[in-house]
Amino acid sequence: MNELFSNRISSVPPSFIREILKVAVDPQIISFAGGLPNRDLFPVEALQKATNDIFNDDGKDILQYTGTEGYLPLREMIAADYKRKGIDVQVDEILITNGSQQGLDLLGKVLINEGDEVLIEEPGYLGAIQAFEVYLAKFNSVAVGQEGMDIPALKEALIGSKAKLMYTVPNFQNPSGISYTNENRQAVADCLRETTTLLIEDNPYGDLRFAGEEKTSFKSLLPEQTILLGSFSKIVVPSFRLGWIVAPKVLMEKLVIAKQAGDLHSNYFCQRVLHRFLLDNDLQAHIKKIIHVYGKQKLVMENAIKRCFPEQVTYLNPEGGMFLWVTLPDSLAAMDVFDKAIEQKVAFVPGDPFYVTKRGMNTLRLNFSSVDPEVIEEGITRLGKVLHDLLDK
Amino acid sequence: MNELFSNRISSVPPSFIREILKVAVDPQIISFAGGLPNRDLFPVEALQKATNDIFNDDGKDILQYTGTEGYLPLREMIAADYKRKGIDVQVDEILITNGSQQGLDLLGKVLINEGDEVLIEEPGYLGAIQAFEVYLAKFNSVAVGQEGMDIPALKEALIGSKAKLMYTVPNFQNPSGISYTNENRQAVADCLRETTTLLIEDNPYGDLRFAGEEKTSFKSLLPEQTILLGSFSKIVVPSFRLGWIVAPKVLMEKLVIAKQAGDLHSNYFCQRVLHRFLLDNDLQAHIKKIIHVYGKQKLVMENAIKRCFPEQVTYLNPEGGMFLWVTLPDSLAAMDVFDKAIEQKVAFVPGDPFYVTKRGMNTLRLNFSSVDPEVIEEGITRLGKVLHDLLDK
Repeated sequence: MNELFSNRISSVPPSFIREILKVAVDPQIISFAGGLPNRDLFPVEALQKATNDIFNDDGKDILQYTGTEGYLPLREMIAADYKRKGIDVQVDEILITNGSQQGLDLLGKVLINEGDEVLIEEPGYLGAIQAFEVYLAKFNSVAVGQEGMDIPALKEALIGSKAKLMYTVPNFQNPSGISYTNENRQAVADCLRETTTLLIEDNPYGDLRFAGEEKTSFKSLLPEQTILLGSFSKIVVPSFRLGWIVAPKVLMEKLVIAKQAGDLHSNYFCQRVLHRFLLDNDLQAHIKKIIHVYGKQKLVMENAIKRCFPEQVTYLNPEGGMFLWVTLPDSLAAMDVFDKAIEQKVAFVPGDPFYVTKRGMNTLRLNFSSVDPEVIEEGITRLGKVLHDLLDK
Repeated sequence: MNELFSNRISSVPPSFIREILKVAVDPQIISFAGGLPNRDLFPVEALQKATNDIFNDDGKDILQYTGTEGYLPLREMIAADYKRKGIDVQVDEILITNGSQQGLDLLGKVLINEGDEVLIEEPGYLGAIQAFEVYLAKFNSVAVGQEGMDIPALKEALIGSKAKLMYTVPNFQNPSGISYTNENRQAVADCLRETTTLLIEDNPYGDLRFAGEEKTSFKSLLPEQTILLGSFSKIVVPSFRLGWIVAPKVLMEKLVIAKQAGDLHSNYFCQRVLHRFLLDNDLQAHIKKIIHVYGKQKLVMENAIKRCFPEQVTYLNPEGGMFLWVTLPDSLAAMDVFDKAIEQKVAFVPGDPFYVTKRGMNTLRLNFSSVDPEVIEEGITRLGKVLHDLLDK
């Protein structure tokens, strides 16, 4: 049957992380490998109440098919939240998607021909690499570090470039946890302004800031060229698979056609439940609770790292989000550490899959959002021993 | 921005039906144009109870991310239902999708290269045409009629064909309402057996039979080459957007990769609610209720047609499903009738969008599932007058 497959799917290898996580199913393993929100913070009762209220008020309505664009009052709420943040977004520039992952798929579908160039921050979100790889994009990566994108590298990459898209997660990036500074954002916007490249600002973690100042959205710096992706997965509930895409109207028309051909519309029942939840609950207060817990968990992890990791191992200090990025000495490949760590019942994601082509990297991602403080302590202690064993020879 | 779009999306025109339905929003219009299940039959209370039960039992669990394949016990239920029907399907051959529409999209993504041939029944489901058009398939159509597929035409189409896929809705087809006879299915299977063409049996309406005998699934006749698409939209609830795809393991591997890159997984909360609903309710009894109502509505429509339509107008008599297919005299284009019908406040879908290339067709689709009997009477009476006006000159 292999000869039947399309070129696009033949080019995508099975997910590296999927394979890795298979190793980490042992319940005794402390896993920093996931990318999950903390389940103890899900607003279970409030969602159950919202569900009952909407069943009682609109039972039949919430069960029928609906329009492709999504529930209008929910899109109005999203537009209002942007307005509150000083970002100008019209309701008809918003399409409800199955998480922001579907936003990436739709953008790939609507914009990328085989061989089209896509600029991507490196390390970068694996899900974006996979989504665009399916459409046979040719990636060109630009390094990111503590301040954001490497501007000389970006300028270099843009010379003679016909890139249709540049993909960024400027707030608490997955995998590195870093955020672009305002100066960096300004410089990136200045670089792109003279091009036809569209900038994707994927922002699933932006509301989860536990330190530092709110930064300027690319949508404000580069309004005509910026596509926003948003998600309720990290601030309310992941299993509803509800996110959104904000795009200029001429692009939105095509995205709606692609969405309709792809799955008609996103789960309408959950759009209505979520809308009711947002209507009757204080989302900002709920987000504050999440931030408080994640900030504490990050601090516990950071202190444990300071105490347990060898000096030669460094890390980037995130101001929000769910991830902390560790750099090993050049001599040590994270994949090799992974094998030893699994023996000691602790797991993480080696950096490799977050690079478009590089392998054998000396970086790794630690998730702190879904692990309790005392377990973080124990896990980092174990990982510290593994690292000392490998480095103190 | 137009130069930025991919070839695949530039090739898809805005949905014809979408445009048509814009004309039909006037609440005074009696619409046979939709493709909606009857909302009065949604099991509102039972779904609310299932939701509360699952919230009470597994509150946090049902809100987290999950695996791409879908909730295992739900997939086991689907496999068991196939077994009950004498169709052999393994659990790991089942992937939960966002309605069966996403199954079509995933198949297009995984199988179709630009210019690859897809055989499709004609008239055929518009959503399938759109889904495969996005992947730049080259369609080759095979006519269907009251008995099923035109076998000589299929044989002709298969000569020298490298078609990767053939798309069928063998039960109560959308748009024509026809079902393939067992003899026809056998003949179709015999034709395909010697080829490498995969057959898609899209079966959203199969359980909604109000007359005649259950027919043999292509999965039993051509097990290695058949892909099944199923959906809960017509038998339980459409807004959950839950369907499934059954495919051989080697293909399933690729579908899972595409699904993961596309939206990670389908709405898990609703998978759990639906599973709980199916566990605690008698689905077959619920389906019987739907069948009873749809059968009655079909009969009311049929009798009204006999009474009100000119003799030269014929129709195909469906044994189930939601649609009835009308053929006008050759001289009369359904699009022209549509314009006059809208003036008389009655709407339907002209046949044109269900043909891959033909336009100006003399066929039209009437939906009877979502219109109450007395409204059907009135609508068909209006439509009969329009037809008499146009034909009795």
